[in-house]
Amino acid sequence: MRLTSFTDYTLRVLIYLGAQRGEGRLATIGDIAAAYGISENHLMKVVHHLALRGYIETTRGKGGGMRLARPPREISLGGVIRDAEEDFALVECFQEGKPACSIRGPCALRKVLSQAMDAFLGVLDAQTLENLLRPESELLKIFGQRIELRRK
Amino acid sequence: MRLTSFTDYTLRVLIYLGAQRGEGRLATIGDIAAAYGISENHLMKVVHHLALRGYIETTRGKGGGMRLARPPREISLGGVIRDAEEDFALVECFQEGKPACSIRGPCALRKVLSQAMDAFLGVLDAQTLENLLRPESELLKIFGQRIELRRK
Repeated sequence: MRLTSFTDYTLRVLIYLGAQRGEGRLATIGDIAAAYGISENHLMKVVHHLALRGYIETTRGKGGGMRLARPPREISLGGVIRDAEEDFALVECFQEGKPACSIRGPCALRKVLSQAMDAFLGVLDAQTLENLLRPESELLKIFGQRIELRRK
Repeated sequence: MRLTSFTDYTLRVLIYLGAQRGEGRLATIGDIAAAYGISENHLMKVVHHLALRGYIETTRGKGGGMRLARPPREISLGGVIRDAEEDFALVECFQEGKPACSIRGPCALRKVLSQAMDAFLGVLDAQTLENLLRPESELLKIFGQRIELRRK
């Protein structure tokens, strides 16, 4: 069972922006790519998605970049993951457009799996981005070192 | 977020064998494939896995087939899903053999996601195959009709 790497990167971008929100300058995709050692290409779509969903604000041009649009304590992890995942179709019968399973009518599995998924998302709904930003100084130190390395 | 189709089919095979355990004859892969309209090839690996893990007993030869090795109430859905899923590596840092994420040390995301996964599996640990076999008569009716169709 896995989340998509899109969701993974979404969370990483938010952690980066959350940690450096007091730093006084906007973050660039290049910064985040260097901070995590991941490709800028992958991050473009993630950043676009986060801006569309109102999690971040972006500014174009020289000195442009992005920052969180809301305080970290107002960003629910359950919400972020619901927005980023394509679906929660745990098994085939949750997927639209698939031929219906022969026992779809009487089968109790859908209900049980839905309850399990609700429990999963319930834990994440009770957590915000703020809970991921401690110890913030350590995160900032790592990000700073990695961005410094890229500049050299 | 999805389970693998291997896990999906594992659950379907167990539901089939659970529903028809009072029918007095062993089930074949052909029966199960017909009952759900899925390929026998996919089911071979699933049946092999279920036999290895002690969920089912198989007999070769004429009149051979398979049946549950334990009563449905002793088959935990959490156990079945843990055994069938390749991993629960929700994001990259749970996967072995991946380069470590730069913030792996201080990052709190792993802990939060582990708690969410525990809640997910906890719901399934509290349920057994028996809970998926009601109404049994309806399941048997559907399976019977589909196998009959194949014979014609």
